[in-house]
Amino acid sequence: MIPSVEVSIAPWRPLLLGALHRHRSLPQSRYLQLATVRPDGRPANRTVVFRGFLEGSNQLQIVTDDRSDKLAQIRENDWGEGCWYFPKTREQFRLSGQLTVVDAQCENIALQRSRREAWAKLSDGARSGFAWPPPGQPRAEAVAFDVPVPDAIEPLPHFCLLLLDPEWVDFLQLRGEPQTRWIYRRQRDLTWSVDLVNP
Amino acid sequence: MIPSVEVSIAPWRPLLLGALHRHRSLPQSRYLQLATVRPDGRPANRTVVFRGFLEGSNQLQIVTDDRSDKLAQIRENDWGEGCWYFPKTREQFRLSGQLTVVDAQCENIALQRSRREAWAKLSDGARSGFAWPPPGQPRAEAVAFDVPVPDAIEPLPHFCLLLLDPEWVDFLQLRGEPQTRWIYRRQRDLTWSVDLVNP
Repeated sequence: MIPSVEVSIAPWRPLLLGALHRHRSLPQSRYLQLATVRPDGRPANRTVVFRGFLEGSNQLQIVTDDRSDKLAQIRENDWGEGCWYFPKTREQFRLSGQLTVVDAQCENIALQRSRREAWAKLSDGARSGFAWPPPGQPRAEAVAFDVPVPDAIEPLPHFCLLLLDPEWVDFLQLRGEPQTRWIYRRQRDLTWSVDLVNP
Repeated sequence: MIPSVEVSIAPWRPLLLGALHRHRSLPQSRYLQLATVRPDGRPANRTVVFRGFLEGSNQLQIVTDDRSDKLAQIRENDWGEGCWYFPKTREQFRLSGQLTVVDAQCENIALQRSRREAWAKLSDGARSGFAWPPPGQPRAEAVAFDVPVPDAIEPLPHFCLLLLDPEWVDFLQLRGEPQTRWIYRRQRDLTWSVDLVNP
């Protein structure tokens, strides 16, 4: 999952970056929905923020708290599917692949550096969330959320970088009738096939 | 799953309808992302259109093609989770529950009537899609998409109504710091509990 050499830019990536560019006036265009599977076999789905691609790879960067349900889910089943809808261009990207958790214990030096870089780019408010009481637990008293502003260099222990490594991408353009739909599949040699399919 | 009596309106429903109302100028506010589980245990996720609540229930109506991958997934694992993000009010609803497929063979008269009503509300263009070549297959020649305008009364055989019956709803308001998050859970007597939790 973690490339040991630089991989070439996947052919769906310029299309995704084009959609992001055309929606740059909408902050929510960086939000996608990430599906995972719960330990009981039911799906889970939530909005996450795209934090750019991991350098030298086609992996999407997301940040999360290691106390969140999604982390427990990913530790049992590391597959995820992101769904991203762009309203102005009426395009949808579905990105299926394995997820890698880069937590405080991760011993990969390059990934630990990426985790620190992602931390440094957060706002103070977003960083403070990692010092708050555990997500999903009964609401704590207001004072528990009154935490000192975290250091911008050293990530708090609960902060994780989450990487989605797509190996199947379904790109749908709703404009036009019939709509246009392509399926990209990563091959063993890390090149990509692309097939035009019925919408 | 199919209520034999009218159920009372769930407490999260006015909140969802409020968000929809405040986003009524954005057509895409009726789009949510629906996660299911693939037969190989990996998650799937795609954008679907909310078609209102099934009368006398808290079930969300969606329409789909019985040749789509999602139908094959749902026939093996009927759990789904919808994720709905509202950008203007910065609210997220996650809705987890069982899915019911109302296809051409469904023998429930009331559901078959709801299926026909959903069909009647579609545009001609949306109806035509159910006469097109199978979704996801290699792209057919253009002539295969040149189908006669379907009848507005009798649904085409591939047309399905899909119902999501939430039993767990996670409502997050991102405005404010800390954010506000409630979990609604359906009880055995069909009433709902609500818990304020840490974001």
